[in-house]
Amino acid sequence: MALLAARTRGSRRTLPSEFELVARYFAPLSRAFPGAYGLRDDVALIRSSPGHELALKTDVIVAGVDFTPDTPPELIARKGLRVNLSDLAAKGARPRAYLLDLLLPDTIDEAWVAGFAAGLELDQAEYDVHLIGGDTSSTPGVLAVAVSAVGEVPIDRTLRRGGARPGDRLYLTGTIGDAALGLAAGRGELPQLDPRSTAFLMDRLRLPRPRVALGPHLIGLATAAIDVSDGLVADLRHLCTVSRLSAVIEAHAVPLSPAARAVIEADPAYLARALTGGDDYEILFTAPADAAPRIAELAVQCCTSIAAIGVVSAGSGGPAQVTVLGPGGQPMSFSTEGWTHFGGRSA
Amino acid sequence: MALLAARTRGSRRTLPSEFELVARYFAPLSRAFPGAYGLRDDVALIRSSPGHELALKTDVIVAGVDFTPDTPPELIARKGLRVNLSDLAAKGARPRAYLLDLLLPDTIDEAWVAGFAAGLELDQAEYDVHLIGGDTSSTPGVLAVAVSAVGEVPIDRTLRRGGARPGDRLYLTGTIGDAALGLAAGRGELPQLDPRSTAFLMDRLRLPRPRVALGPHLIGLATAAIDVSDGLVADLRHLCTVSRLSAVIEAHAVPLSPAARAVIEADPAYLARALTGGDDYEILFTAPADAAPRIAELAVQCCTSIAAIGVVSAGSGGPAQVTVLGPGGQPMSFSTEGWTHFGGRSA
Repeated sequence: MALLAARTRGSRRTLPSEFELVARYFAPLSRAFPGAYGLRDDVALIRSSPGHELALKTDVIVAGVDFTPDTPPELIARKGLRVNLSDLAAKGARPRAYLLDLLLPDTIDEAWVAGFAAGLELDQAEYDVHLIGGDTSSTPGVLAVAVSAVGEVPIDRTLRRGGARPGDRLYLTGTIGDAALGLAAGRGELPQLDPRSTAFLMDRLRLPRPRVALGPHLIGLATAAIDVSDGLVADLRHLCTVSRLSAVIEAHAVPLSPAARAVIEADPAYLARALTGGDDYEILFTAPADAAPRIAELAVQCCTSIAAIGVVSAGSGGPAQVTVLGPGGQPMSFSTEGWTHFGGRSA
Repeated sequence: MALLAARTRGSRRTLPSEFELVARYFAPLSRAFPGAYGLRDDVALIRSSPGHELALKTDVIVAGVDFTPDTPPELIARKGLRVNLSDLAAKGARPRAYLLDLLLPDTIDEAWVAGFAAGLELDQAEYDVHLIGGDTSSTPGVLAVAVSAVGEVPIDRTLRRGGARPGDRLYLTGTIGDAALGLAAGRGELPQLDPRSTAFLMDRLRLPRPRVALGPHLIGLATAAIDVSDGLVADLRHLCTVSRLSAVIEAHAVPLSPAARAVIEADPAYLARALTGGDDYEILFTAPADAAPRIAELAVQCCTSIAAIGVVSAGSGGPAQVTVLGPGGQPMSFSTEGWTHFGGRSA
């Protein structure tokens, strides 16, 4: 690609050629995956394990939209990869490989690319996933990272949004609201918060922890599941809409980190921010009431906390009803339920 | 994705929410592919046909780099998809599906998105390929389109860059240089060219014709193959490097369109531009000498011209030797062999 850019890019002096960059920094990330052909052919080949099918997901993160321009390249790389792995995990898929599209503005130098590749290498080791292809282009715009992740899942067993049944319990992995409150802290909204809590929340914003180890174990246990990225309330509504059910959750049962709890105790208005803020990358799932003992075992086995936060019930036939009972037992109202992309927040 | 952007995007008034855009314009493009779940779940599922494996390729096109800002949205969409289908075709893979990442600056309105989706719909019908997932984000930068295409190919039969053998003939589909000369025309370099030829060349730049129907038929016939996108000479060198061979091609045998021929007859200096310009999206392949009759039949069957342009021979052990014999039989020299991405052209 890039005929038009011959002159644009010809004047570029901050980076080696794309071929050199690929050979030096990206090809090594493909070496353990034979079908990637060392990134030296036109396509990558992948075969699913017997009895499995492939699960595909793509997500793009953009400077100034999804991360601040001062974010270290290692963290940009890892976030770009992890937000995709989170979707795979929520569907019960085991990650295998990914493709990478990288848009690099003129300000990017070779040290940045080296840091970016080092971040990918760390996460490849952590999640057993491999770079198998990609494209790198200069841009007159801003830095952007698009990842297309490939996982595999037993045939016809993937966790869908639409399988919940009336009476199922709602469960949530990890904690909610850390990223949203980390963003608030980064904007200087939380000057009273102790430095350790501030650092914890900002780290959670910058480096999601997708539930990759847990996800595949939910197959056969969960009836429906969704990745929580737009905000807990919004994603619960997505699940209920597809499952044609209503839901009631209790705010006090929603798991919070000690840091998030400290913020909300100091100013209860932040509870709504936590419940609707997004960027959590936890798994929200439903399971029958009698699955509770197995879920408790699974949490221990995968070293991931799993909290019961509510129940789903038959829908009304109209738009999905999602009720959040506040600390006093009364239904909470939100100025917005979560991130709605171009529409933004109504607040 | 997109916590940071809540405020950025909240002020956006030119577009409906991402959910509405997806429902209105993109979900219909997924309806014939059950594993896409109508773009209403976190991942898409895909299973290869028995005896096949999946081939993956991603490419990104960027405004001001790969297309001019005034390009109609239909053509941007189709080019973004087709450059990927060309890679699949060159490997013998049949296209099945694609993921789409779309970065939209504030200048984009709903009519643009409608046009973009209409372009995709045309090409889905033409190539029997389906949108199965994607991500749409606003950007403070420029428009960019990243496509990840999924094809399938019989297991262990894909066409590689590295399978050519000494004595094999070099073949090329279609014509070379039209896009590069179309770019020259668009820049006003070719004012003497007749309007019809100008329009033809510019159309070839804007709308590549990937050899999707032909590609799978090359399995069992071609010994090596590559998508010609960086420029004929550069891509021939890529093939020779991986195959560890040398090559000699004859410039007069390289197939040219009547329009390209007119440009070169008026000014022979444009021959080098045609041979190195890139954005051709043809297939360059090698085959044994005795395959010529079957290749001729295949060209008729697929309505695609295929020209014999030279031969490959044993390599020297050093860097691949690629010789282009000019109109007088003497080796041509090029200031650059093709598009080398960040490094640009040496000219």
